[in-house]
Amino acid sequence: QLSQGEGEEQDTFSILVATDNHLGYLEKDPVRGDDSFKAFEEILKLAAESEASGAMAVDMILLGGDLFHENKPSRKTLYNTTKLLKQYCLGDKPISLEFLSDPTDNFPEGIENVNYMDANLNIAIPVFSIHGNHDDPAGDGNLCALDQLAMNGLVNYFGRSQEVDNVVVKPILLQKGASRLALFGIGNIRDERLHQTFLRRNVKLMRPEEDEEEEPWYNMLVLHQNRVMHGPKSYIPEAFLDDFINLVIWGHEHECLVDPVYNPQQGFHVSQPGSSVATSLSEGESKEKHVALLKICRSKFKLDKIRLASVRPFIMGDLVLADHQIDPTNQQKVNSLISRKVRELVEEAKADWLDKNKSIALKRRMDPEGESDEDDTNQDHSGDQPTGIPKPLVRLKVEYSGGYEIFNPQRFGQEFVDTVANPRDIVQFYRRKTAFNKTIATKTKT
Amino acid sequence: QLSQGEGEEQDTFSILVATDNHLGYLEKDPVRGDDSFKAFEEILKLAAESEASGAMAVDMILLGGDLFHENKPSRKTLYNTTKLLKQYCLGDKPISLEFLSDPTDNFPEGIENVNYMDANLNIAIPVFSIHGNHDDPAGDGNLCALDQLAMNGLVNYFGRSQEVDNVVVKPILLQKGASRLALFGIGNIRDERLHQTFLRRNVKLMRPEEDEEEEPWYNMLVLHQNRVMHGPKSYIPEAFLDDFINLVIWGHEHECLVDPVYNPQQGFHVSQPGSSVATSLSEGESKEKHVALLKICRSKFKLDKIRLASVRPFIMGDLVLADHQIDPTNQQKVNSLISRKVRELVEEAKADWLDKNKSIALKRRMDPEGESDEDDTNQDHSGDQPTGIPKPLVRLKVEYSGGYEIFNPQRFGQEFVDTVANPRDIVQFYRRKTAFNKTIATKTKT
Ligand SMILES: [Mn+2]
Ligand SMILES: [Mn+2]
Ligand SMILES: [Mn+2]
Ligand SMILES: [Mn+2]
Repeated sequence: QLSQGEGEEQDTFSILVATDNHLGYLEKDPVRGDDSFKAFEEILKLAAESEASGAMAVDMILLGGDLFHENKPSRKTLYNTTKLLKQYCLGDKPISLEFLSDPTDNFPEGIENVNYMDANLNIAIPVFSIHGNHDDPAGDGNLCALDQLAMNGLVNYFGRSQEVDNVVVKPILLQKGASRLALFGIGNIRDERLHQTFLRRNVKLMRPEEDEEEEPWYNMLVLHQNRVMHGPKSYIPEAFLDDFINLVIWGHEHECLVDPVYNPQQGFHVSQPGSSVATSLSEGESKEKHVALLKICRSKFKLDKIRLASVRPFIMGDLVLADHQIDPTNQQKVNSLISRKVRELVEEAKADWLDKNKSIALKRRMDPEGESDEDDTNQDHSGDQPTGIPKPLVRLKVEYSGGYEIFNPQRFGQEFVDTVANPRDIVQFYRRKTAFNKTIATKTKT
Repeated sequence: QLSQGEGEEQDTFSILVATDNHLGYLEKDPVRGDDSFKAFEEILKLAAESEASGAMAVDMILLGGDLFHENKPSRKTLYNTTKLLKQYCLGDKPISLEFLSDPTDNFPEGIENVNYMDANLNIAIPVFSIHGNHDDPAGDGNLCALDQLAMNGLVNYFGRSQEVDNVVVKPILLQKGASRLALFGIGNIRDERLHQTFLRRNVKLMRPEEDEEEEPWYNMLVLHQNRVMHGPKSYIPEAFLDDFINLVIWGHEHECLVDPVYNPQQGFHVSQPGSSVATSLSEGESKEKHVALLKICRSKFKLDKIRLASVRPFIMGDLVLADHQIDPTNQQKVNSLISRKVRELVEEAKADWLDKNKSIALKRRMDPEGESDEDDTNQDHSGDQPTGIPKPLVRLKVEYSGGYEIFNPQRFGQEFVDTVANPRDIVQFYRRKTAFNKTIATKTKT
């Protein structure tokens, strides 16, 4: 790994890596409707303002799929996405990445070059993205939403395979100073199908030839597949991936496991950035959300994680009714126990948020201008509290064996409309047996 | 009017005017699916290649609404439209139009300036468009497809009123040399509603102030409404429009009546370019399709019409069965009479096309390279004949009174699958009474 201070800037790729932004998720929800856009804007801002904040300028953004939640994003979602990309990724900043591969090997038909080589467009930060299972090509013309962004020159969409049974990946080849990066992309293919294609040795990553007079290529792969085993073939084992790869960016899995994990058999690291918005109220999604600031210099890399401060807090709790010696027929007592527990979780989430955002809160007190900038209450329909603390997502799992009766979680939640972001599905009832099953990977579409 | 040779180029606006392109019309039809795009591409090409062909360079394109056929164009249609606009409207050509109005008065929220002033985008030919009834704003965010093109900087979308009961139009103000153009736009509003708003004197075109030291403004209005009276209030009489207007561009009516007609009461001219693709098999749509090349110099204008050569030929015929003394019970004889008549129409359409396209046909013979460019039969799914003549649209109206029996036009058309573009609806049966009604304006949504 690259140590602090090592590597000259002119020889170092600085790449902001994020995935599963699910733009447009719950877009009609009055509270959570903008969550996916807020997180995505924070990510774009991190890249655009990196240099101004004293750090090294970000050279490019790499996205791991599921940029959009819906295969056909609404007009509003496509419009707002375009607006954000224009706002943060266009401009006069010079780009120091030399594009060495044949663009027609990397990009879909109709796209002639990497966007920053288009003389009619002024790109400051190029975005590279593969597709996920949510935004995969479909329908007449076999297009996906990323094709539209690509045609508009806002995203470099790569990693689409012509055939799913014969996947040949020619990498994007980039050079910055002495460092050379080969970026392989595999946009989502149904897991069972891709698994099979791997088994038949029909996935070919076309490793670039080395040149004795140049640094060796740093080989990076981004893919969007199950990493967790959901069934014998419905995932991609790391062992399937070529061992000449140096670093794998794993999209699709929403849990943030961004810290690189070394796979000694394969000799590569794997980083799983996770989603930037929770699309299910599961354990994995309740962890803190991060993106990766990846530095690559010659044969070394360094990955710093950056917490996304705009993400709505999400807290989970567990309650076993039988532990509380309440008469199962006393529905009122049961109800108030559950209510109390939810209130405790809300308080805990608040305290936690304040703790983590001390610096932000402090900054706001010092710079009230900044405040009106960050939460313009006229514009913001998220219904967050006047304290500035976003309403948390709360999930309380209630074990009800012992003769307790379940109730309608939607009605229960009415009490929390003003304090919880997801009042309709706070409580989830389960029985011990179910609980055991729950520990196996959920099958939510991520 | 501006006479030939009058007016220096540096003082003359050259504007290509088109309307009702209905992109995506019948996009799934194997023969006619690309018709709307071919015509639109021809229009863009006329503008982009004007200078190269020895004429004056086109300064801008003005579209009168219904750019898209569907309110939510398919992904493919939006993608192909974007592709065409990028191909023909971006580039290094300098733009000599000074933009003098406040962009926030002209364009929707979120659009900061006219596209050619965006430092991050290299516009060669700015496109200005109002919306029609097919592509009007709707849904969450009250957006229309033109908003997406505007956000991408490919179209300057103007003429959307905040309120339909109080329409205040601030013009786009453009200067070229000594000439000054005030361009007013009224995007489609339901006819009855806009009629009412006019009657209540709540449509205000904000005439720009004159400056003694400058040429007077040339005032032009583009709107997209019924011009033909469909009912007492379901159209906009020309008398409603301010008499300070010099020239009206009338969108929505699909019949090409592009030659300017002077309205002596109002003191303005009206030009109705008509659609660039036939969306109904009606009399009006069967006329030749043209666009306008409009020159404006100081207080004078000149309008040249340009025939769209790419438009599929469309021929109409009428047959009164009773005139042919055939026994009404002899279905076979009736059938072959109708077939013969259709074949005659096809031949007539062919001869007509060859006659009109002599110069094109000649050019092809001289320059076989050009041929492969214009109809690459590998790419072209329009199923046109090997002669290069496009399959014509044919509509035969058959008067069947006198005991004749009607038959299924779809089955009848099978005979013409290889020669007619619309085999399923060639024949339309009517009785004399119906025929009379037909002469009243059709109520097809245009
Ligand atoms: Mn996914
Ligand atoms: Mn996902
Ligand atoms: Mn119309
Ligand atoms: Mn129309």
